[in-house]
Amino acid sequence: MTQKTKRSQPGGVRGRAVAPKHEAERAFPRLRILMGDGLVLGPGKVDLIEAIDRTGSISAAGRALGMSYRRAWLLADALNRMFAQPVVAASQGGAHGGGAVVTEYGRAVAAAYRRIEERTDRTIKKEFSRLDPPIDIG
Amino acid sequence: MTQKTKRSQPGGVRGRAVAPKHEAERAFPRLRILMGDGLVLGPGKVDLIEAIDRTGSISAAGRALGMSYRRAWLLADALNRMFAQPVVAASQGGAHGGGAVVTEYGRAVAAAYRRIEERTDRTIKKEFSRLDPPIDIG
Repeated sequence: MTQKTKRSQPGGVRGRAVAPKHEAERAFPRLRILMGDGLVLGPGKVDLIEAIDRTGSISAAGRALGMSYRRAWLLADALNRMFAQPVVAASQGGAHGGGAVVTEYGRAVAAAYRRIEERTDRTIKKEFSRLDPPIDIG
Repeated sequence: MTQKTKRSQPGGVRGRAVAPKHEAERAFPRLRILMGDGLVLGPGKVDLIEAIDRTGSISAAGRALGMSYRRAWLLADALNRMFAQPVVAASQGGAHGGGAVVTEYGRAVAAAYRRIEERTDRTIKKEFSRLDPPIDIG
């Protein structure tokens, strides 16, 4: 009998065959950091910081992420209100130059978030592999 | 001049006084683990596992968490569909005994989630304290 599961498993509770009900190699964290006062640093804001850093503008970053200019601008504004230092600043082209840059502080915030996310991802895989039966994390 | 901030800071960008804009000791993770196929293990489901374990029933657990019986039942059902082993089972009182128990596997899942959450919390505090200026995490 051909099965799509990657491994055979012993019969489960009440004699049912037990197969992984999800493809656990796709298990990954979605981490929101609650900063107090309802402020949240999550994957959407960090994606935006990185996209502004790549594209040099809030509008181009928004397009790259499939979000409206208004939403991208609001997220950038929220980021700047959230931390003690600006995360996104106007580039030197003047008030209406339209460009935006990520500050060194903003880069450090994004990099810290990515390290936290990566560490969490490793911890998930370690903990899930210890369950009995383990969650197959590929 | 009396300030509510806990520490003095040097002047910020454009000469503004910089103060922490959030109470960072309240910074903590809200971790959702995406399991594939749209399945998510997050804090609500883990709270429910622990509440069922304490109270011995889905309805009492739901009440303790301020959720409807319907919502608690749906979350418990989702948990049982998500993993290779049952997480919540009917207790020995029979089909309409009304009681529920958390399986050993379910306890292991909840404990693994809490360890991942705790590790992530420590990583957040370490990473934020390294930012310049650091995020004051108390």
